[in-house]
Amino acid sequence: MKDMLATSIRYSNQCLEVLDQHQLPHKETWLPCRTTDEMISMIQRLQIRGAPLIGIGASLLLADLAEKGMDTSSLKESAAHLRAARPTAVNLMNCLDRMIATLNTKGPSGLAATAEAMFQEDIELCSRMSEHGAALFNTHTNLLTHCNTGSLATAGSGTAIGVIAALQAQNKHPHVYVDETRPLLQGGRLTVWEMEKLAVEHTLICDNMAATLMAQGKVDAILVGSDRIAANGDFANKVGTYSLAVNAHFHNVPFYVVAPYTTVDPTCPNGESIPIEERSAAEVQGVSGSFGDVSWSLPDTPVYNPAFDVTPAKLVTGWILDKGVYSQEEISQGVLRTLS
Amino acid sequence: MKDMLATSIRYSNQCLEVLDQHQLPHKETWLPCRTTDEMISMIQRLQIRGAPLIGIGASLLLADLAEKGMDTSSLKESAAHLRAARPTAVNLMNCLDRMIATLNTKGPSGLAATAEAMFQEDIELCSRMSEHGAALFNTHTNLLTHCNTGSLATAGSGTAIGVIAALQAQNKHPHVYVDETRPLLQGGRLTVWEMEKLAVEHTLICDNMAATLMAQGKVDAILVGSDRIAANGDFANKVGTYSLAVNAHFHNVPFYVVAPYTTVDPTCPNGESIPIEERSAAEVQGVSGSFGDVSWSLPDTPVYNPAFDVTPAKLVTGWILDKGVYSQEEISQGVLRTLS
Repeated sequence: MKDMLATSIRYSNQCLEVLDQHQLPHKETWLPCRTTDEMISMIQRLQIRGAPLIGIGASLLLADLAEKGMDTSSLKESAAHLRAARPTAVNLMNCLDRMIATLNTKGPSGLAATAEAMFQEDIELCSRMSEHGAALFNTHTNLLTHCNTGSLATAGSGTAIGVIAALQAQNKHPHVYVDETRPLLQGGRLTVWEMEKLAVEHTLICDNMAATLMAQGKVDAILVGSDRIAANGDFANKVGTYSLAVNAHFHNVPFYVVAPYTTVDPTCPNGESIPIEERSAAEVQGVSGSFGDVSWSLPDTPVYNPAFDVTPAKLVTGWILDKGVYSQEEISQGVLRTLS
Repeated sequence: MKDMLATSIRYSNQCLEVLDQHQLPHKETWLPCRTTDEMISMIQRLQIRGAPLIGIGASLLLADLAEKGMDTSSLKESAAHLRAARPTAVNLMNCLDRMIATLNTKGPSGLAATAEAMFQEDIELCSRMSEHGAALFNTHTNLLTHCNTGSLATAGSGTAIGVIAALQAQNKHPHVYVDETRPLLQGGRLTVWEMEKLAVEHTLICDNMAATLMAQGKVDAILVGSDRIAANGDFANKVGTYSLAVNAHFHNVPFYVVAPYTTVDPTCPNGESIPIEERSAAEVQGVSGSFGDVSWSLPDTPVYNPAFDVTPAKLVTGWILDKGVYSQEEISQGVLRTLS
């Protein structure tokens, strides 16, 4: 397989490596990923994360294993294990479906070309979303975003953050309010790191402060990514997105979801059908990362910790996809069923 | 002054002591408070906190200083400094106004009786609010609360948590969703500690998960405290309250504010007139307490950190006060102007 380089994944000299996002922003450590179990562990520990990127990462690993001699049956077994690593993000399933289709038609030797194509395609999808999204906003727009959706979550410039990066590149000088995104702090650790690298003016807030900013008229629009968009336009994204959508609706703040077609699941009729991963109590009882590991709650405190929530289509102003920006009316006419 | 004992403040053998809430729930440390500067520092570091309790605490200190020989002029100077320690909570100003009125009419020797009376009155106000509030709910109600409003925030059983404690005492078995309350984690540290002590069934969540619970129909009502209620019913409370109120409105979940008359500011016409304290960037860039001190963001990340937000009266279902439960209609007729 040829060498490939993205912000947080790379393939070089027949070695797949992942930038350990658990350690950002304090340490930039690249970890080799050689086995299915290693990739599953990295996905579950969010060392590699972002719906598009975990699909690409799992596919690069399969192609690498094929090049190193794994047979078709073992590759299919690996793919099945990888598919179960994170239940909500559909990009993982979509990418693995394409890898299995290649395996069935061309055998293990065909996987490298498919993985390379998907890596390249993800970069191009980011460019197209960014272009469509950036066209919606004037100079000096105040945007608010949740979680991390940039070059750490895709092979390219990102989904929601891709739009922000394009605005910055076009000298439109966006200002971005960054939700810290409890419990795993993807905003407070990763998005601030990306904003800094992009030289985008930004302000970090706790998730529960977004509503106040909206009431003060300080938010012109909200941009978020997605882990799965159902056929009716409902979508799952990092927990906290739904609360923002309700507040955006109340305050008449435009609310956009930004995602490539690989995030759309036309077989999923609506948000209720999206499986939501629940994670450990420890994540809510404290915080953990390269910065330290502390727990402030009582050790046996009962916790509810859904990693994602579902935002209904009725709260979305527009779906910024790689093929264009779609309105509620277009989505309700079924455009997502015939997109890919 | 006679001995007085509450969960987090006590006066014993002529010594005022405060339970250090910065160190809860891991360490229960009582700190002596001997000077105005010590009390101001404790208020600003949230070692003593809760709108009613800081009013009582400041008053007990003034009475103690008077008993130890401080003259009228110095006591007035102390009161002026204490008044500025936290700008949003009006209980502090209300209590100090009563202390100054006593000082003007009876001199320093009158302060002990006034402080003792306010301490006792705060316990009784909690009992009355709890009684009025508990009458609103049946058995096995699922309540959601924000920040900490219990025996750590008052001299008595609390405001919102006082209602929960009364439900538990009446064998109505409430279940409470506890918002962790970023940035200072009063829910994740203090409310879970109180729920545990009261043996109330509870579940800790991140603030951004409350909306999802409401969408799932798992929240029957929301109870919060307040730091200042304006004459028109708008009120300030710990940041994150407003986002809950908007979500409660969207999901038709009853939303109650629970507070004694000492929290009402009839001279403040509406929420826009309530001063909102902004606090340090470090609080949002990380967490700090007896559990440790970590920072996960980049050290120069710009931050917006309002400690409180304002919820407009139109989003409130009922005001549970010590005199009874008031509806939107009663509040709009001006009942808060003639309450005390």
